[in-house]
Amino acid sequence: MTSHAVLRITCPDRKGLVAATASFLARHNLNIIDAQQHTDVDERTFFHRIKIDLEHLSMTRSDLEESLAKECDAHSMIWSISYSDVKQQVAIFVSKYEHCLADLLLRYRLGELDCEVPLVISNHEKLRPSVEMFDIPFHVLKITPENKIEQEKTALKLMDRANVSLIVMARYMQILSPIMLEKYESRIINIHHSTLPAFLGARPYHQAHNRGVKLAGATAHYATLDLDEGPIISQGVTACTHTDTVADLIRKGRDIERTTLANAVRAHLEGRIFVHGRKTIVF
Amino acid sequence: MTSHAVLRITCPDRKGLVAATASFLARHNLNIIDAQQHTDVDERTFFHRIKIDLEHLSMTRSDLEESLAKECDAHSMIWSISYSDVKQQVAIFVSKYEHCLADLLLRYRLGELDCEVPLVISNHEKLRPSVEMFDIPFHVLKITPENKIEQEKTALKLMDRANVSLIVMARYMQILSPIMLEKYESRIINIHHSTLPAFLGARPYHQAHNRGVKLAGATAHYATLDLDEGPIISQGVTACTHTDTVADLIRKGRDIERTTLANAVRAHLEGRIFVHGRKTIVF
Amino acid sequence: MTSHAVLRITCPDRKGLVAATASFLARHNLNIIDAQQHTDVDERTFFHRIKIDLEHLSMTRSDLEESLAKECDAHSMIWSISYSDVKQQVAIFVSKYEHCLADLLLRYRLGELDCEVPLVISNHEKLRPSVEMFDIPFHVLKITPENKIEQEKTALKLMDRANVSLIVMARYMQILSPIMLEKYESRIINIHHSTLPAFLGARPYHQAHNRGVKLAGATAHYATLDLDEGPIISQGVTACTHTDTVADLIRKGRDIERTTLANAVRAHLEGRIFVHGRKTIVF
Amino acid sequence: MTSHAVLRITCPDRKGLVAATASFLARHNLNIIDAQQHTDVDERTFFHRIKIDLEHLSMTRSDLEESLAKECDAHSMIWSISYSDVKQQVAIFVSKYEHCLADLLLRYRLGELDCEVPLVISNHEKLRPSVEMFDIPFHVLKITPENKIEQEKTALKLMDRANVSLIVMARYMQILSPIMLEKYESRIINIHHSTLPAFLGARPYHQAHNRGVKLAGATAHYATLDLDEGPIISQGVTACTHTDTVADLIRKGRDIERTTLANAVRAHLEGRIFVHGRKTIVF
Repeated sequence: MTSHAVLRITCPDRKGLVAATASFLARHNLNIIDAQQHTDVDERTFFHRIKIDLEHLSMTRSDLEESLAKECDAHSMIWSISYSDVKQQVAIFVSKYEHCLADLLLRYRLGELDCEVPLVISNHEKLRPSVEMFDIPFHVLKITPENKIEQEKTALKLMDRANVSLIVMARYMQILSPIMLEKYESRIINIHHSTLPAFLGARPYHQAHNRGVKLAGATAHYATLDLDEGPIISQGVTACTHTDTVADLIRKGRDIERTTLANAVRAHLEGRIFVHGRKTIVF
Repeated sequence: MTSHAVLRITCPDRKGLVAATASFLARHNLNIIDAQQHTDVDERTFFHRIKIDLEHLSMTRSDLEESLAKECDAHSMIWSISYSDVKQQVAIFVSKYEHCLADLLLRYRLGELDCEVPLVISNHEKLRPSVEMFDIPFHVLKITPENKIEQEKTALKLMDRANVSLIVMARYMQILSPIMLEKYESRIINIHHSTLPAFLGARPYHQAHNRGVKLAGATAHYATLDLDEGPIISQGVTACTHTDTVADLIRKGRDIERTTLANAVRAHLEGRIFVHGRKTIVF
Repeated sequence: MTSHAVLRITCPDRKGLVAATASFLARHNLNIIDAQQHTDVDERTFFHRIKIDLEHLSMTRSDLEESLAKECDAHSMIWSISYSDVKQQVAIFVSKYEHCLADLLLRYRLGELDCEVPLVISNHEKLRPSVEMFDIPFHVLKITPENKIEQEKTALKLMDRANVSLIVMARYMQILSPIMLEKYESRIINIHHSTLPAFLGARPYHQAHNRGVKLAGATAHYATLDLDEGPIISQGVTACTHTDTVADLIRKGRDIERTTLANAVRAHLEGRIFVHGRKTIVF
Repeated sequence: MTSHAVLRITCPDRKGLVAATASFLARHNLNIIDAQQHTDVDERTFFHRIKIDLEHLSMTRSDLEESLAKECDAHSMIWSISYSDVKQQVAIFVSKYEHCLADLLLRYRLGELDCEVPLVISNHEKLRPSVEMFDIPFHVLKITPENKIEQEKTALKLMDRANVSLIVMARYMQILSPIMLEKYESRIINIHHSTLPAFLGARPYHQAHNRGVKLAGATAHYATLDLDEGPIISQGVTACTHTDTVADLIRKGRDIERTTLANAVRAHLEGRIFVHGRKTIVF
């Protein structure tokens, strides 16, 4: 299989955008494998994701990018390109719950997630064996109110060194500081164990049990300063009944959490997500 | 098919309850067709629903009930019995949205809902033809802040005369007064177009669209004084994406609303629901 | 709201197709509202659906179509165009089961289905009132082995006169003849009450009950000469258990049948379906 | 938490069965925590599962069982009892696919499956590390047409020694011999990667892709001599579209397979499943 690229474009909507992009690619002998577009009619914004076959690319990638920059500038397009043979580096943050972590690492080993995982960061020792059995470095950065900023700086350094471009909070039980959130804006995926905006905050399964709901679920979203208010990427639910104790909800919820989180991570890695205000477009 | 009865029992939990009830039924030559039980462990409350074959009942129903009363008193059981050949009378309240109403009436005609619908009450003329085509009386009781109590009294009189035991609010866009809510406590089913407790209050599909959720849904619940806070009976969801406009959510939601509401109504008619504080047990 | 058009294109895959189409539209001052594309990699076939804003169209539609024909011929594209202000005419075929018919007619009245329904054809009298209450002509064409071909010819004449472009078999319990199937190829939607290819043939709910499945469902597909083998458009399922009798499966199935059928009909009317051999592409 | 027991009863249906059982338990000072019953009306067979609190049991378990045997004999009841503090021993059979195995072992570690896993048996070396990282013995029994019976005998010996009462075929790619099937009748759970009876036999995802289905799924069932025809325990599905390649179906299917299999295994371990001819009752 030859390598391909994903080109992502956002710009104010107007006529001729698809024609301009498609003509550019045709002129450069690049075949479109797959493409999705969306126009936010209210805000007149255009979103475009194009998967390109690089087989017949007859220039260097940097020449292509220079050419792209010129073309896109002419149309006020914000653009980015990624290549299938350049793996993204993903850092997983975890505390004591194993299910999301184990699920991601299994998918990673099965080849479902097109990335590399150069490190896992935790505020607890507990899950070291679950990580090291996959030969992935496990870093414990214990958090106290006093050392929080410092520990995050250490984390940032570790991630810089590993060239991390995506953070996955796999039930990481700490609130990230603005420094981290800003540096990795729209690149930190968190899993919340309720179908937001239901049951914001702490202990959502307990809240759900108290309210007597008949559906329990989970939400993967980008982390933002407003806790549990970030752009939603994916959601899942499972039926529940009066027989379900809080422990049952937690158990059932684990299945939803891990699937929902994995779907979000895969979509991000495939360049399918555009953040648009407090919402997402997921192609 | 011979007729059957549904016996419903609630009482403080303790040993021997099932034995007592089952022995009583065996002594009266009544076969158990189906039975469900649930114990709320925290509050030590026992819930029991028993579907009974009446084929070999050798006494009058009033004698049976007298005998039952004695037995149940001895065990501090709150009980009720209903008979399959005595149809419940259901009043449907509706405003201008037709889908839930039409769905219920179609199910009623198809024999899915074991009840009779002696009347539909509305605060608008609009849906008269949709009701009268089923040969069901349609009463318009327009509501203003001034006449609200009076109109509800008229509604109560109409329902008294028709021996109504269940009210279904099929997208009825009025808040019921405490008089109505008290008289029909745990016997008024409302459909809210969100998965409560998400998007309480007005225009939930607009709220859902603004929040960018990936699942939209509906909740059937018993109406209580606390709006949208009544015991939840059933919930449903459907997937949605960035391509869904508010109009799309409304359209998709209609399918969920009508199925969710119908499920709740059928469960109620079959005596499957016990209200327990702010929750339900749905056998 | 101004009117729009849907342009549908199929052709052998090669470079520059999107560029050609998008440039054509830009040259004609037509904005793309929405577009989807798919390439069947194995068979190197390209499928394209483009929703176009007609607001700034500065020529007649026939001139546009002439221009389109020239452009598409140059690229060996098979194309068609439909306009939002030209409603499709849909004939519904029905026998004795009401639920799919009633569901379609309700959605039609609610504006969910962008079409007109000039006639309903049945081989039984039974559902006349359910159709005529919507002021839609109801034609009974009773079928015997002897008169089948003749009756279908009558149906074809009725549909010709009404300019019908889509037939919906809403639980129509007759096998259509090759004449009808050929004339309306890829334009007859049938609903089968199982998740094909499970439970082909007669009485699928009985088959499902005998097999003890835990999911029951329905399949909407285009009708072809090979019964129950036509291209699948949409499928739905519902959970079932050991408590479900055949009658319960039939009841639960009705909800799935009508939703699944309606989804297929709406997708067809919106020009979202391409038939590709024995499969469909549903944008 | 004190220990509890699960009592399972099957017998010809007649009046007084629940009374007899409930009275027996009450006489022995045993509280019913939870109970389910089902009557197969056609075959007049009664199924009963009772979860019993053992806190106030004032005799030995063997005395209880002797007493139970007498009572049940008097009513022609087939019965069995299991105790929460006596873990079932589960053998997992696996070939080269890791996802179901890894999922079961993770759930086992998380405490979701109330059992012990004393050994994993495989016909390949490949998954040894995935098993041994959980400190579970991994036995490779390579299978050829010549040594098949002998290898199964070795497996049976290993399982005898470990007191195995349930075999889980976690994508084990071998057909078991009649000896094994007979010895572990209704105690071998297999996962098939389609919603049976659709796509029997080999390569169901390829079959599903060729047929162009819009739902793909999996079925957990007891293994029987008739391949893919054993009693179905649980089924799951996921939506798919024209964009899904066979590889995508395989990936999506993995999520369904592992959840469906885990649900079946948990239900079996909790004594919730009764096999009834070629069907199951799952309480």
